[in-house]
Amino acid sequence: MIQLLIAHIEKFSSIPANKASLLEPFFEHKIYKKKELLLTEGQRCYEKFFIVKGCVHLFYLRQNGTEQTIDFALENWWTSDFTAFQQGAGAQFSIRAVENTEVLSITAERQRKLLKQVPELNEYFHYIFQKAYAASQMRFRFLFEFSKEELYQHFLKHFPGFIQRVPQYLLASFLGFTPEYLSEIRKKYIS
Amino acid sequence: MIQLLIAHIEKFSSIPANKASLLEPFFEHKIYKKKELLLTEGQRCYEKFFIVKGCVHLFYLRQNGTEQTIDFALENWWTSDFTAFQQGAGAQFSIRAVENTEVLSITAERQRKLLKQVPELNEYFHYIFQKAYAASQMRFRFLFEFSKEELYQHFLKHFPGFIQRVPQYLLASFLGFTPEYLSEIRKKYIS
Repeated sequence: MIQLLIAHIEKFSSIPANKASLLEPFFEHKIYKKKELLLTEGQRCYEKFFIVKGCVHLFYLRQNGTEQTIDFALENWWTSDFTAFQQGAGAQFSIRAVENTEVLSITAERQRKLLKQVPELNEYFHYIFQKAYAASQMRFRFLFEFSKEELYQHFLKHFPGFIQRVPQYLLASFLGFTPEYLSEIRKKYIS
Repeated sequence: MIQLLIAHIEKFSSIPANKASLLEPFFEHKIYKKKELLLTEGQRCYEKFFIVKGCVHLFYLRQNGTEQTIDFALENWWTSDFTAFQQGAGAQFSIRAVENTEVLSITAERQRKLLKQVPELNEYFHYIFQKAYAASQMRFRFLFEFSKEELYQHFLKHFPGFIQRVPQYLLASFLGFTPEYLSEIRKKYIS
């Protein structure tokens, strides 16, 4: 399991082989069934998650009781409520398995210890978070720039597999559509 | 000048004193007059900027020729088009000085060399980008959750000094308001 994470680390940075072998005990291998919660809004957030297999979504509860999906994470992505993770504070998001999902989880406390022993991992996390932040900059642009229909077209073009994989009501929420509107648009682009 | 950056680094991480002294030659001290461009959409982006003094905004040109502000950066913030920076690609954003501004700029090429000599800096950048990404997660939540008026109230409460400092037409653009709408709301909260 840890090999998948080490392979991902080595794609973007380098850690000495003798140090890679130190990683495993810092992580917990967790398995979540479809629809199970990895993190619950309001509870303290101690962990971040590396998705080994499956898919999760990050969402919050609107005042009217419906769920607003903010993001997804697939294999080889890290996810958490990073404000809460960094402060050990109450989460402002929940995370739920969209499919049966396996993760490697690490607590902030353990990460501190790990980074002391393997500071080389900061290179990897520097790259990972720079990439995630860069993607956010582009997403803000898309949210301002695109009409709802253009947003769907963009998503269809750049993430076609993802559109098949994720339940349509979650995709609609993520795009800020009603499920009915997404269904209408889909018909238009399929026909 | 470099001392301001070193002080910021030491707030969040630690680099050995003998290594801190290596930083200066990797950075260029640049001065921009109010309204001068640091980065132009379409041109290749080689640099990222640490704001020493002043304020800049990150924006793109809409098809109708108006500018859409996506973000601001003040003292002690890093800014760039990070997708373009990381790929050495054409920028999809411009960056312009909102006030007379001083920055420390570093190219991707120089950063690679610097991080080889001072790999401890990855700890700082890991923290900085995690924080920036965490703020993005919250901003997506606000964009979905808040009405336009609530968005202004939130901003007024959490960044009161900023609202005074930034020209109102840029703040309106950033919040997705028309300048007229922002002006109406401001009157309501001032009176």
